[in-house]
Amino acid sequence: MTDPTRAAEPAPFTADDFAARLERAARAAAEAGLTGLLLTPGPDLLYLTGYAPVAITERITMLVVPVDGGPTMIVPKLERPDAEGSPGASVFELADWTDGSDPYEATAGLLAPGRYALSDSAWAMHLLGLQRQLPDTSYVSMTTALPMLRAIKDDDELDRLAAAGAAADKAYGEILEVRFTGRSETDIGNELAALLRRFGHSQVDFTVVGSGPNGANPHHEMGDRIIEHGDMVVLDFGGLKHGYGSDTTRTVHVGEPTDEEREVHEIVQRAQQAGFEAVRTGVECQEVDRAARAVITEAGYGEYFIHRVGHGIGLTTHEPPYMVEGERQPMQPGMCFSIEPGIYLPGRFGVRIEDIVTVTADGARRLNQTPHEMAIVE
Amino acid sequence: MTDPTRAAEPAPFTADDFAARLERAARAAAEAGLTGLLLTPGPDLLYLTGYAPVAITERITMLVVPVDGGPTMIVPKLERPDAEGSPGASVFELADWTDGSDPYEATAGLLAPGRYALSDSAWAMHLLGLQRQLPDTSYVSMTTALPMLRAIKDDDELDRLAAAGAAADKAYGEILEVRFTGRSETDIGNELAALLRRFGHSQVDFTVVGSGPNGANPHHEMGDRIIEHGDMVVLDFGGLKHGYGSDTTRTVHVGEPTDEEREVHEIVQRAQQAGFEAVRTGVECQEVDRAARAVITEAGYGEYFIHRVGHGIGLTTHEPPYMVEGERQPMQPGMCFSIEPGIYLPGRFGVRIEDIVTVTADGARRLNQTPHEMAIVE
Repeated sequence: MTDPTRAAEPAPFTADDFAARLERAARAAAEAGLTGLLLTPGPDLLYLTGYAPVAITERITMLVVPVDGGPTMIVPKLERPDAEGSPGASVFELADWTDGSDPYEATAGLLAPGRYALSDSAWAMHLLGLQRQLPDTSYVSMTTALPMLRAIKDDDELDRLAAAGAAADKAYGEILEVRFTGRSETDIGNELAALLRRFGHSQVDFTVVGSGPNGANPHHEMGDRIIEHGDMVVLDFGGLKHGYGSDTTRTVHVGEPTDEEREVHEIVQRAQQAGFEAVRTGVECQEVDRAARAVITEAGYGEYFIHRVGHGIGLTTHEPPYMVEGERQPMQPGMCFSIEPGIYLPGRFGVRIEDIVTVTADGARRLNQTPHEMAIVE
Repeated sequence: MTDPTRAAEPAPFTADDFAARLERAARAAAEAGLTGLLLTPGPDLLYLTGYAPVAITERITMLVVPVDGGPTMIVPKLERPDAEGSPGASVFELADWTDGSDPYEATAGLLAPGRYALSDSAWAMHLLGLQRQLPDTSYVSMTTALPMLRAIKDDDELDRLAAAGAAADKAYGEILEVRFTGRSETDIGNELAALLRRFGHSQVDFTVVGSGPNGANPHHEMGDRIIEHGDMVVLDFGGLKHGYGSDTTRTVHVGEPTDEEREVHEIVQRAQQAGFEAVRTGVECQEVDRAARAVITEAGYGEYFIHRVGHGIGLTTHEPPYMVEGERQPMQPGMCFSIEPGIYLPGRFGVRIEDIVTVTADGARRLNQTPHEMAIVE
């Protein structure tokens, strides 16, 4: 069996891949009753064309995908050579606009009147510019209109997500061997980041090290706090490997835990398992949240689980489907998302356990494989 | 004289600084006939409150600054502890929303009906959510409504920009000493990045190394091309030091240049100087572009100068004021921006020279001080 953390760089996606994705996107847009799609730099554009400009700036770049007719990408003139050299350049027409001209007039000229889905993270400035040019055209966010566009991963994408997960698991395995006591959260976080890079991550997006009371703040990243014997420590880390995301959390303890710490950890562990077991093709996403939440609520800690249970992952760390109350999207094979229940006791400590999973024909498969039991570190 | 690259970390901005900025912002909004300002994570929010969440995600965070009454920031509940700990936390009220609820309903509840300026880079998804909740309220981008909000730097900001510029100058001084011939652009770019960090940059945003024909693509970053004897090489690099930006460009030559290369470089040098001399309090920003462009056009290369001459700089690398045809904003003391004319000869080579300058009472001062003459490298 090959070790996915050591696999060679996967073959890049080809112009044919991008052409197939663009065709599928246009078809989905038509089925949703849209006139077309408007994609700006970020994961949507990367998915459909392989193109990412050097930076995302105030200069508009936009791929227009009409439901009938071919796609056109408009770029700032000075970035035209980059766009011409992008992997999917053969599958769209190029247009450009020049500094000093009105980019919204030029972009609006590519749009038939109607209703478009627009990348979630497109700049509001650009949307306002288009709304001014085309007052009778309407817009809806991609997550509202076509949440499933990137949600179902093909085999090549699954391989990348599995490799990212395996690399994160290796980083976790190594961090258990280091000394925690007397070192700052930042120090441990930097070591985690270096491990992710060592196991093939090109980019580290976050390294949460929440020790003692800092663990009760789910989005605390890391700080100067010196880790002490007796601390619970939440470790939540991830980034990109081969362009796809990793994101895993384990909660460890420095020395022996108290009975209460052990109990809280065990509840979260059961909640994570309940969420995992709720994954099934055709079942609504919200059922995963409900299953995990029920375990925590029944144990009396419901008010301390203050976030949704998970989020999709792919070219970005957070994307549809969201595993949250109210999300009625049915799960389908190839979807990948986190399941990450937590209990946060303000001023005291927090526990979270997170795996990335993928939906299979008959349930789910974990892309993180390290044990859920509370590891004891020094 | 102190060496600004070695100066101690400047004192952080205080709650009083943020309170003063918020008051000035509310006053400017009132003068512009707005109901208030809506700021999302990024430079506007950092400027007005010192707050930056761990990541900018699909979960909305928004600071509402009404023209009358105090500001309120709404955050995802799980990020509330971070927001409470931010430097300007005492100058705004906090509200939160919980996963599974409608964040736009909660945010809209903070807005009186009217007309708001919104951060340029706010996610379109969030704007669409607010537009759905409040169909009679209208929005305009910050750059359209209040382009000058962050444009005039105070002394503490100028010190930071000067320190960033001096550090970039030191990096340039060192890179001239390294061997270029036979090394890849990426190799030189990585060395430039390491130098920026050595001289105090916390973040490197770009290291353009455009050798030979790649120099003719203004937004080419760097690649596998091996630099050869006889190449012109555009070096454009910058990042953040003490939270403020550097951005400078010099064009060097490997070995002796041809007469044509020398002439093109000399034209760009004169254009940069002409732009610099056009800077004067009360003069429109577009005059800087015109002055530099006139030199290049008169020399017969007008069609090869394919971008505006400059952009403001501060907490971000690109911000108002833009030095571009059509920008009638008058220059004022304390504004900081780039002046970066270039000539790009497709398939052959490019030349660009860029300094950051600040407007003074009687002209301009350069924040980059290295010579403009074409340096010869090995």
